[in-house]
Amino acid sequence: MRKCVATVSVSGTLTDKLDAIAAAGFDGVEIFENDLLTCPLPPEEVRRRAADLGLSIEMYQPFRDFEAMPELDLRRAEHKFRVMERLGAGLLLVCSNVSPRALDDDELAAEQLRILADRAAGHGIRVAYEALAWGRHVHDYLHSWRIVRLADHPALGVCLDSFHILSRGPDPIGVEAIPADKIFFLQLADAPILAMDVLQWSRHYRCFPGQGGFDLPGFLSHVLAAGYRGPLSLEVFNDHFRQADARRTAVDAMRSLIALEGAAHPAAAPDGFAFAELTGADLDGPRAVLAALGFTRSGTHGTEPAELWEQGRARIVLNHTGQAPALGAIGLETPDPAGSLRRAESLIAPPLPRERAPGEAPIHAVTAPDGTQVFFCRTAQPYGRREDFTPAAPPAGPITHIDHIALTQPWHHFEEAELFYRSVLRLRPQESLEVPDPYGLLRSRAMTGPAGGVRMVLNVAQVGGAGLPAQHIALACDDLRALARRLRAEHPGLLLPIPANYYDDLAARHGADPELRELGVLYDRDEDGEFLQLYTLTHGRVFIEVVQRIGGYQGYGAANAPIRLAAQRAH
Amino acid sequence: MRKCVATVSVSGTLTDKLDAIAAAGFDGVEIFENDLLTCPLPPEEVRRRAADLGLSIEMYQPFRDFEAMPELDLRRAEHKFRVMERLGAGLLLVCSNVSPRALDDDELAAEQLRILADRAAGHGIRVAYEALAWGRHVHDYLHSWRIVRLADHPALGVCLDSFHILSRGPDPIGVEAIPADKIFFLQLADAPILAMDVLQWSRHYRCFPGQGGFDLPGFLSHVLAAGYRGPLSLEVFNDHFRQADARRTAVDAMRSLIALEGAAHPAAAPDGFAFAELTGADLDGPRAVLAALGFTRSGTHGTEPAELWEQGRARIVLNHTGQAPALGAIGLETPDPAGSLRRAESLIAPPLPRERAPGEAPIHAVTAPDGTQVFFCRTAQPYGRREDFTPAAPPAGPITHIDHIALTQPWHHFEEAELFYRSVLRLRPQESLEVPDPYGLLRSRAMTGPAGGVRMVLNVAQVGGAGLPAQHIALACDDLRALARRLRAEHPGLLLPIPANYYDDLAARHGADPELRELGVLYDRDEDGEFLQLYTLTHGRVFIEVVQRIGGYQGYGAANAPIRLAAQRAH
Repeated sequence: MRKCVATVSVSGTLTDKLDAIAAAGFDGVEIFENDLLTCPLPPEEVRRRAADLGLSIEMYQPFRDFEAMPELDLRRAEHKFRVMERLGAGLLLVCSNVSPRALDDDELAAEQLRILADRAAGHGIRVAYEALAWGRHVHDYLHSWRIVRLADHPALGVCLDSFHILSRGPDPIGVEAIPADKIFFLQLADAPILAMDVLQWSRHYRCFPGQGGFDLPGFLSHVLAAGYRGPLSLEVFNDHFRQADARRTAVDAMRSLIALEGAAHPAAAPDGFAFAELTGADLDGPRAVLAALGFTRSGTHGTEPAELWEQGRARIVLNHTGQAPALGAIGLETPDPAGSLRRAESLIAPPLPRERAPGEAPIHAVTAPDGTQVFFCRTAQPYGRREDFTPAAPPAGPITHIDHIALTQPWHHFEEAELFYRSVLRLRPQESLEVPDPYGLLRSRAMTGPAGGVRMVLNVAQVGGAGLPAQHIALACDDLRALARRLRAEHPGLLLPIPANYYDDLAARHGADPELRELGVLYDRDEDGEFLQLYTLTHGRVFIEVVQRIGGYQGYGAANAPIRLAAQRAH
Repeated sequence: MRKCVATVSVSGTLTDKLDAIAAAGFDGVEIFENDLLTCPLPPEEVRRRAADLGLSIEMYQPFRDFEAMPELDLRRAEHKFRVMERLGAGLLLVCSNVSPRALDDDELAAEQLRILADRAAGHGIRVAYEALAWGRHVHDYLHSWRIVRLADHPALGVCLDSFHILSRGPDPIGVEAIPADKIFFLQLADAPILAMDVLQWSRHYRCFPGQGGFDLPGFLSHVLAAGYRGPLSLEVFNDHFRQADARRTAVDAMRSLIALEGAAHPAAAPDGFAFAELTGADLDGPRAVLAALGFTRSGTHGTEPAELWEQGRARIVLNHTGQAPALGAIGLETPDPAGSLRRAESLIAPPLPRERAPGEAPIHAVTAPDGTQVFFCRTAQPYGRREDFTPAAPPAGPITHIDHIALTQPWHHFEEAELFYRSVLRLRPQESLEVPDPYGLLRSRAMTGPAGGVRMVLNVAQVGGAGLPAQHIALACDDLRALARRLRAEHPGLLLPIPANYYDDLAARHGADPELRELGVLYDRDEDGEFLQLYTLTHGRVFIEVVQRIGGYQGYGAANAPIRLAAQRAH
C-alpha cells in the first residue's frame, strides 16, 4: 500500500520536512496547514518541489468548525479550495466541529457538508469528514459515517484516524460496516495508554505504530476487511519528534509502517546472547573485573585489537577502540544470521560495513539508532564473530550466561529505540517504569524475546539535565552469595557499596537476612520467586551486574534501582 | 509560622538536600524515606547533620498500606519506629491504603490505626493519617478525619495535604470542622489545573504555592481558621525540580511560602515601564533600528558607556557591556522605589550591587532568577536611572510607550520565573499557551500588573533542543500602518519578512486587506478589538516588535506567533 505521512509529524520548515519524508522513501504527504502558512514558498512551488521529490500531496488539512453551524459559511472554504488547486491537493480534511456555536443536528451537518462537497467537486476536490475524539457533538467514527451517509454526495466520505477511534475504545469492528469507497483516507497513530484529557493526549503523546499501547495491527485489519486500499498515512503530534532531526524521524516513521504492514523479512527471532562487546582505549578496569568474576581470556582476535573472555556461555569481547569504556556491540544467537540481517535491513537498519580479513567469518550486523552494533550469530556453527578468535583455555565458573543487556537512550529517541528493538529483534515490551535518581527520573522498559533467551532493558534519563545513565551487562550466576563472598574477600573495592539503611528497610519488608547486608547483595521477591543482585563499579559509561534468579522470578529488581542509582551517583 | 519542606522536593543526595534547605532559611524538614534509604549515613548522623544546620526533623514519610487490612502487621511499623528514634523524628505519616487487599471498613481502619498509634506513643512518636486522593477506600480528608475520630487516640491525628484536597474539589471549608489539636501536620503544594490521572498529576506536576492554579491562600485561611499553628510544609513532586539545582529550588520554595503567608513587604505594584536596557559589545544593529523607528538619542550616561534613546514615553538604554545583544535590564515605574526594593528583598531577590559615582541617582534594583536586572524607578521625580543621563533632544513620534516585554526562561526554570515576577511585581498570570515552532513547542504566559501598565510575557522553549527563543521589547504605536509604510520605503531589510501564504489565510479568516500584505503587518482580531504587529530582525538574542492596539484588544496576537517564529527561523 502507498505510504504517506502528515508534515506535522516531523520537525523543521516545510521544505526540510518534504526532503526528509522523501529521503525515507514515502510516496506522499498530507500538508498540515500551519506548515504551508509559515512557508515562504507559494503553493505552486511547494507542489513542484513535492513532485520533484516523487511525493504526491494526498490531503490538505485540517479545515475546522464548518458543519452544523447556525449559518453556512462557504467563503473560508472557497479560499481553501483555491489554495488546494495551486497546491495540487485533491482531498480536504474536515474535522468535526468543536465550536460552542455548533448545533447538535445531524441533518444540518449533512446538509452543509453536502453543499461543501458539491462546491469542492467543482474544483475537482473531495472532502473527508473525520470525527475528532473531542468533537462537540460528533466524536465517534460511526457518527461521522452516519452524517456522510445522510449527505449522500459522491465527493464526501470519511477519514478514519486510529487515534480518534482507539482513544475512545478498543474495538473498532464497526469500521467494517463502512463501504470501502466511502473511506476516503486512513490516518494512523499509536499512543501510550494514558489517563488524561484526550485533546492533550492527542497533541503531545501520539507516536508511530508499534511505539504505544494501541492495537494498530488489529485496527488495520478491520480497515482492510472493509476493503480500503488507499494510502496508509501517519499523523503524529509528538513533543519529542517536534524537536528531533526530521530525517531520523521520517526513517522511524517508515520503519513503523513496514512493521505494521507485516512487510519485514520474516526471519526467526534471536533466542540468546552470543556475546557483548566493550570498547575503549583503556580496558584495564573491565578486564580486572572480568578476571575477578572468574572469566578466562579464551582468545585473541586474528586482526583486531580484541580479546575474548568467557565463562559458561557468557562471552565478553574487549575491543581496544574508541574512548571511554562503553558497550559497543551485542551479539545475538539466531537460527539464521543471514535471514536476521535481511529482516533488519528490510526495517531500514544500516548494515555494518567492516573490512574483513581473508579467513574471517562473514559478518551479519547492523547499527541500531543508538549506535550500538547488533551482530547476528550462530555460535554452534562455524559462523559469526566467535570464530575469528583463536580459542585458548576452556571456560568454567558460577556465571552461566548473559541474563540481560541494559542500553541507554537519549530522552528524545526512546520511542525510536523501542520500535527498532521491537521490530528488528521481535522483542516484546513490558511495562514502562519510572525510577527516581537523585537528579531526575529514569524511565525504564524491559523487552523480552519470544523464547525468553533475549532480555533487554532500555533506559532513558527523563530529560537532558542529568546526563545519560550508564549501560550495563547483567550476567546470570547460579550461586551469587558464594561469588559475592569470594569477591568481598579477594577483591575489596570491586563492588558498588550499598547503604546500610537499605538493609534496615529490607528487614522491615522481608525479614532480616544478615548475610545480604554483610555481602552488600540486593534482594527482591515476588510471588514467582527471588532475585539477588550485585554491581561492580562503573568504568567509563558501563558497569557489570551479576544476578541470580531463584524460582520463576522474571523481573529486574525495580524496587532496588533507586538504591543502585544513588550509590552510583555517590561514587 | 515555622517553615518546612519535604526532602523529596529538591534534587540531590540527602546531605545536599539538607544543606540547600538550611541555606534557604527553612526551620525543618520532612524526611522522605527513599532519601534516607539511599543515604550512606546512619540515621543518627543524619539527625546530627540536620541539628547542626538548625533544621528540625518534623516528620518521617510515607508509611503505606497499613490500615484496614485483613491482618494487622505491626512488624514493619516497629522497624520504622526504631529508625525514627535514631533519626529523632517524632511524627510518622501514614497514607491511606491503596492496596487491593484493603477492606472498606472504617471501624477496622480505626481499630488498627489506634493500635499503631498506641505502639507509636510507646516510642514517643505520633501518627498523622492522610487521605491520598487515589486511596482505595479513603480519599477524602473528611473521611480520614472520621477514621481518626473513631480511633480516638491522643497520638493519632490527621495530616492535611493541599494537593490531595484541592485536586478533588475547590472548596475545602470542611477543614474548619477539624479541631486544631487533631491537625498534626499541614503539607502544601500547588499544581497546574490539568485533566489527567490524579496519581500522575501528583507525582510529576506539583509545584510551589503560587506556581499553579489552586487557591492556596484560600486553603490556608481555612486551616488557620481551624486553629492550626503548626509548621507550613511544602511537599512537591516535580519533574523539573528533580533535575534543577537544589539550592535554587530551595530558595524558590521559601519565596513561595513568604508570598503565601503574606509576609512580603507590602509595596505598591509597579504601574508602567520606565525603560528597557539592551546590553552588548556591538549595539550598532539595535541603534540603527531605534533610529529608523524614530527614536532620538536623548542622553549619554555620565560614567557608563550607555546611551538613552527616547520616543514618547518609550525609553531604551543601549549599554555597551556584555557579548551578543540581549535584554539586560528593565526599569519599572513605581510610586515608591525604595519600598518596591524592600518588597523584592523580602522575597529573597538579590539586590544589585553597583558602584555609584558621586551625583548619580540612588539605585533600587534586584536581579531576577533569569539574570534580568529589575530597576524600580520614579521617572517623574529626581530618582531612578533616568537622571544619570544628560538630556539632549526632546522625543516625539508615533511610538508612545513600551507595551510589553517578553523574557525567555530555560525550560526547567519557568515555574520559578513565574513566581518571581508574580510575587515581586504583583503581576497576575494569564492563561498559558503553547505555540508551535518549526523545532518544538514554545510555552508562553502573559502576566499583567493590576493597573494594566506593566505587561510581561514569559516564554520558554519546551525542552532543551531548540535553544532559547529570543527576548523582545514590544513598543506601542498609534499609527502602525504609517510607520510600516515609512519603514518599507526608507529602510528596506529592517523588518522581518512575513510569508505570503499567511495573507491568503488571513483573507480566508477575516476578509482581504491588501495593505497588510503589502506592508508585511500581522493582524489579529477578537470581540474586544484589533491588533497590528510588526517585527524587526533579531540582533543577538533580542528583537523589537511594534504593536498597535485598536479598541479594547488585550491579547498578544497568539495566532500569529507560529508565523513569526517560523519567519525568524528562516532568517
